[in-house]
Amino acid sequence: MNNVVKHSSSLKSKNGQHIVRIRDVEVGAKRIVIMAGPCTVEDRENLLMTAISVREAGALVLRGGAYKTRTSPRSFQGLGETALRLLAEAREQSGLPIVTEITDHTDLPLIAKYADMLQIGSRNMQNTVLLKAVGRCRLPVLLKRGFSNTIDEWLSAADYILDGGNDQVVLCERGIRTFETSTRFSLDILSVPVVKRKSRLPIIVDPSHAAGNRDLVIAVSRAAIAAGADGLLVEVNCNPYEAKVDGKQTITTEQFSDLMRQLKAIACSVKREL
Amino acid sequence: MNNVVKHSSSLKSKNGQHIVRIRDVEVGAKRIVIMAGPCTVEDRENLLMTAISVREAGALVLRGGAYKTRTSPRSFQGLGETALRLLAEAREQSGLPIVTEITDHTDLPLIAKYADMLQIGSRNMQNTVLLKAVGRCRLPVLLKRGFSNTIDEWLSAADYILDGGNDQVVLCERGIRTFETSTRFSLDILSVPVVKRKSRLPIIVDPSHAAGNRDLVIAVSRAAIAAGADGLLVEVNCNPYEAKVDGKQTITTEQFSDLMRQLKAIACSVKREL
Amino acid sequence: MNNVVKHSSSLKSKNGQHIVRIRDVEVGAKRIVIMAGPCTVEDRENLLMTAISVREAGALVLRGGAYKTRTSPRSFQGLGETALRLLAEAREQSGLPIVTEITDHTDLPLIAKYADMLQIGSRNMQNTVLLKAVGRCRLPVLLKRGFSNTIDEWLSAADYILDGGNDQVVLCERGIRTFETSTRFSLDILSVPVVKRKSRLPIIVDPSHAAGNRDLVIAVSRAAIAAGADGLLVEVNCNPYEAKVDGKQTITTEQFSDLMRQLKAIACSVKREL
Amino acid sequence: MNNVVKHSSSLKSKNGQHIVRIRDVEVGAKRIVIMAGPCTVEDRENLLMTAISVREAGALVLRGGAYKTRTSPRSFQGLGETALRLLAEAREQSGLPIVTEITDHTDLPLIAKYADMLQIGSRNMQNTVLLKAVGRCRLPVLLKRGFSNTIDEWLSAADYILDGGNDQVVLCERGIRTFETSTRFSLDILSVPVVKRKSRLPIIVDPSHAAGNRDLVIAVSRAAIAAGADGLLVEVNCNPYEAKVDGKQTITTEQFSDLMRQLKAIACSVKREL
Repeated sequence: MNNVVKHSSSLKSKNGQHIVRIRDVEVGAKRIVIMAGPCTVEDRENLLMTAISVREAGALVLRGGAYKTRTSPRSFQGLGETALRLLAEAREQSGLPIVTEITDHTDLPLIAKYADMLQIGSRNMQNTVLLKAVGRCRLPVLLKRGFSNTIDEWLSAADYILDGGNDQVVLCERGIRTFETSTRFSLDILSVPVVKRKSRLPIIVDPSHAAGNRDLVIAVSRAAIAAGADGLLVEVNCNPYEAKVDGKQTITTEQFSDLMRQLKAIACSVKREL
Repeated sequence: MNNVVKHSSSLKSKNGQHIVRIRDVEVGAKRIVIMAGPCTVEDRENLLMTAISVREAGALVLRGGAYKTRTSPRSFQGLGETALRLLAEAREQSGLPIVTEITDHTDLPLIAKYADMLQIGSRNMQNTVLLKAVGRCRLPVLLKRGFSNTIDEWLSAADYILDGGNDQVVLCERGIRTFETSTRFSLDILSVPVVKRKSRLPIIVDPSHAAGNRDLVIAVSRAAIAAGADGLLVEVNCNPYEAKVDGKQTITTEQFSDLMRQLKAIACSVKREL
Repeated sequence: MNNVVKHSSSLKSKNGQHIVRIRDVEVGAKRIVIMAGPCTVEDRENLLMTAISVREAGALVLRGGAYKTRTSPRSFQGLGETALRLLAEAREQSGLPIVTEITDHTDLPLIAKYADMLQIGSRNMQNTVLLKAVGRCRLPVLLKRGFSNTIDEWLSAADYILDGGNDQVVLCERGIRTFETSTRFSLDILSVPVVKRKSRLPIIVDPSHAAGNRDLVIAVSRAAIAAGADGLLVEVNCNPYEAKVDGKQTITTEQFSDLMRQLKAIACSVKREL
Repeated sequence: MNNVVKHSSSLKSKNGQHIVRIRDVEVGAKRIVIMAGPCTVEDRENLLMTAISVREAGALVLRGGAYKTRTSPRSFQGLGETALRLLAEAREQSGLPIVTEITDHTDLPLIAKYADMLQIGSRNMQNTVLLKAVGRCRLPVLLKRGFSNTIDEWLSAADYILDGGNDQVVLCERGIRTFETSTRFSLDILSVPVVKRKSRLPIIVDPSHAAGNRDLVIAVSRAAIAAGADGLLVEVNCNPYEAKVDGKQTITTEQFSDLMRQLKAIACSVKREL
C-alpha cells in the first residue's frame, strides 16, 4: 500500500536469502532458530540450569538481559556486567552463543567483550544514536520492532544499521500496542509475510511479550513458524514463578520442551527444520 | 487480565467441545472447516464456477454476500434477493451449504428461506437489535469480531445471541484496526487461544479482510490453523480481478487449491483434519 | 492527507454556513448550542427536575435515552416508549426540544411521534440500514462518530443521510478508542477543525463519553468550544450517583451551571454566543 | 481508572503549584508560556529573523533543533554544535532563553554550555539512559510524551528525572498514534486535565506535531489553553515553505501573531495571562 520508501534491506543479495551468523548459528537458512532463556539474568544457578535445559530441548541461542529499559525507575534495572559474566559462563557450559540487550552506546565496548549478538529493545527502536553505534560494530544485531512503529519505520531503523556498514541484522516482531486488553500486546502476525516481501532480512518472533501470559505462548509460537518466521525469541526459566521481571509470560523448561516438540511438526509442514 | 465478565459461552457444555452444525457440516470438531467463495455475489456464471471449484479443492461451506454494509452510499450495495437465489442455485450444484450476511433484522424471514448460516458483519457486531433477532431464530450464526472491539465485547455480543436461545454461534476473527498501514487491518492471532480459554464457542479466522492483499492470505491462513482455529472464511473468486468489491484481497481458485494443500500439512501437525 | 473522497457535505451551501434546525433552535449559527440531560431516562421525577435545571442554566436542547445499545444483554436496555412519553412531558414542562437515540429503523414511526431530533449512536455509525432510514425522514439527525472510525468514514456515513434527501445533520465527536486507559476514550479534538475544513455540517462535541469521569468534563468542554465546536452534548443528572447507566461520567446540575458560566467566557473569546 | 502507580510528581509541593524556571521565565505560574521557533535550525538569517519575530509577538522561549531523531538515516539529522552556536546568538539578539533537544547523553556537557532547557523528544521518552543523565544535571527539562505511551508511563518517565534529583520538569503533550489518518497524530486533549489531577508538574502542548498541518494549529492551540495547559511549544518559521524538516506543520510568523492575539482572549477567559 505505502511501499514508497526504498529500504537498504530491500536490495536483493546475490544468492537469494540473506543469512545472519551468530557464531556458527545461521538465521535465515532452512533451519528454524530458537533463542531461549530468562528475561533478565537474576541468579547464577537459575541461569545455568535454564541454559542447559533449553540447549537440551533444541534451542540454538541463549537469551538473557543484563541491562534493562524499565518503565519505572523503581523497577529492577538488571545486574549489568555481573550478568554479562554469568552469561559468558552459561555459554561455556551450554555451548550456546548469547544474545543480550544494549541500551547505551557507551556500553558497547564492554558488552561486545561478552555478547555474540546485540539486541535493540522495542523502546529503543528509534534511538538513532544507538542504531548508528551498532551499525559501526561487527556483531550481529537483533532489532525488535517498536511496539507502536509501522513496518516501514522498522525497516528504516534497520537502514540505520545497514547504512553504517553492518548487514548482520535480524528483525524481531514482538507485538504492537492496540486497544485490546486481554493480552499485553497484539502480535502482528501479518508482519511476517509483509517483511518477507519487503526485505531480505531474516525475521523472528517474540511470542512472550505479545502474549503477556505463558499459557498463550505455545499457540502463538506455532502460528509464527507457520506464517514463515525464521525463528523465535522465547522467555524460558526453570523457575519463572520467582522471576523479578516478566515471570507471568515466561514458560517453564517443561513447557519449552513441549513447545519444541510441537514446533518440529509445524516446521516440517512448512518445509523447514528445527 | 480483565476476565471479570461472565459470558454465557464460558459455561462448559456437557461433552466438552461445543459443536455448531451448518446442515451436516460440523464446526468445532476435529475437522477444520473452510468456508470459501466470492466477497459479494455479482454474476451467476462466476458464482457457480467458483462454487464448484472451491468444493473440489475441499471447502465445506460456500460464502457469498447479498446484502452489504459499505462505507459509502455510492459503493455497490449487493444484489439482495437476486443474490440469494443465485446462492441457492450454487448450493444445489455444488452441494455446499451457504453462509451469507444479514444487515437488517426485517430481512430475516427472506434470508432464512435461502441461507444455511447467517453472518453478522464486523460493523454490525454491536447492532444489538440484529443480535437479538438472530438469537430468536434457529439458524447457526457466524459472528465476526468488530474491528475495534475487545474480545470481551465480542463474547458479550455472542451473549445476546446465546441468551436469546440460539447457541449455534461460530466466532470469526477478521483483524482489528491499528496504526499499521501496510495491511488493511492487523490480524489479532492471539485472539484464537484467548477465545479458546474464555469460551466454548468455535472460532474461525477470516484472513482476507485483515490482509487486504491476496499475496498475504496463504501465510496468515497457515498461522490461523496453527494457532488452533477451527476453520477459515476465505474470499475466493475464479476471476477476482474484475470483482466490484474487495478483489484485491480475494485469492484465485488456483491459489485456493494451493492454500488447501498447505493447510492439510498444518492441520495434520496440530492433530486436526482437513 | 487522504481527502480523496468527495463528500456530499463538502458542497458549499449558498449562504455559507449550513444551519440545522431543531424546532426553533439553530445549530451552526453564532450561538453555541448546549444539549444536556441524563444518559438514559430512568425516572420521571429525576428527568423533570434535570430538564428544568439545565434549561435554567442555559441548555437549549434536552437529551435522554429511551433505547440503548449496551455491550452486554444483561445491562439495562432503556425504557422504550415509556421513556419517550416522559421526554415529551419534560419538553412540555421545560420548553426544550428533545433529542433521543434510535437503534432500530422499525422504531422510526414511533420515535418520530415524540422526538425533535434523532440520534445515531457511535456503535451504529455504520449501520447503513438505519442511516438510510433516517435519510428518508424529515427530522434532524445527530450523527455520532463511531469510536473507531476515521473522519472520512464519518462523513461517508453522513452521506448516507444526505444522499437520502435529509440535509439536517449535525456531527458529534465523542472520543475514539486508543491505547490510553486513564480515560474511557480519547477525545479527538483535532476532528473539530478538520471537519470544519472538509464539511459544511455543524459539529458538536460529547465530552462525557470521552472522559468517562465527571471531573474531566468541564476542562474538555472548554477545549471543544475553543477549538470551534458549534455546541456540546453533555450528560447531566440532578442525581448522577444513582443512575443505572454512565453515572460516573455524568455531571451534576450544579457542575452544569458552573460549566455554563465558564463556557460563556470561552464562547465570547472565540466570538460566539452562549 | 488505573492510578495504582505512585509517581514522584504526585507529591504535593509546599506552596501548591510547582514552578519550573527557564532562566527568568516561570512555567506553571499564572502566565501562559509560549515557546516558539523553527523545528530545526537550518540557516542563521532565518533563525535570527524568526527569533526576533516570535519575541515581538509575545513568545517567552525560543525553540530550535540541533540534534534530531529522524525515522530514516537519509533524512537531515541536524547541524549539531553549529546549530547550538546559532541558537546562542539568537538568544543574545532576542533575549529569549532557548530550549533544544538532546538525543545522546554524551552530548550533555556540550549542549549544557548553550541550552537553557533540555528537550527529550517523543521517541526518547523511554530512553532511560538519557532520562537518568538529565536527572543528574541542573537544567530544566521538557519531557515530551511518547506518541504511544500512556499517561502513567509518561509520569514514570518523569520519575526517572525527578528521582535523579532534578525536579525542574515540564511535560509536553504532542499527540498520540491512532488509526486516524487525516492528521499526523491525534492530540490527546484529555491528557491536560488528567495530568493536572495526577501530577504537580506543569504541562504544555505541542500543537504542531499532532496536527501535521499548519492550518489546524491555531484551533488546537486555543483548545489546549482552554483545557488548562500552562503553555505551548509551537513550530514557527519566517519561511516554513523551504524548511527541510516539518515545514508543512510550521506556521508563519504572521500566523503566529494571529495565534497570540487569539490566545490572549482564551487565556483571559480561563483567568490566565499571556
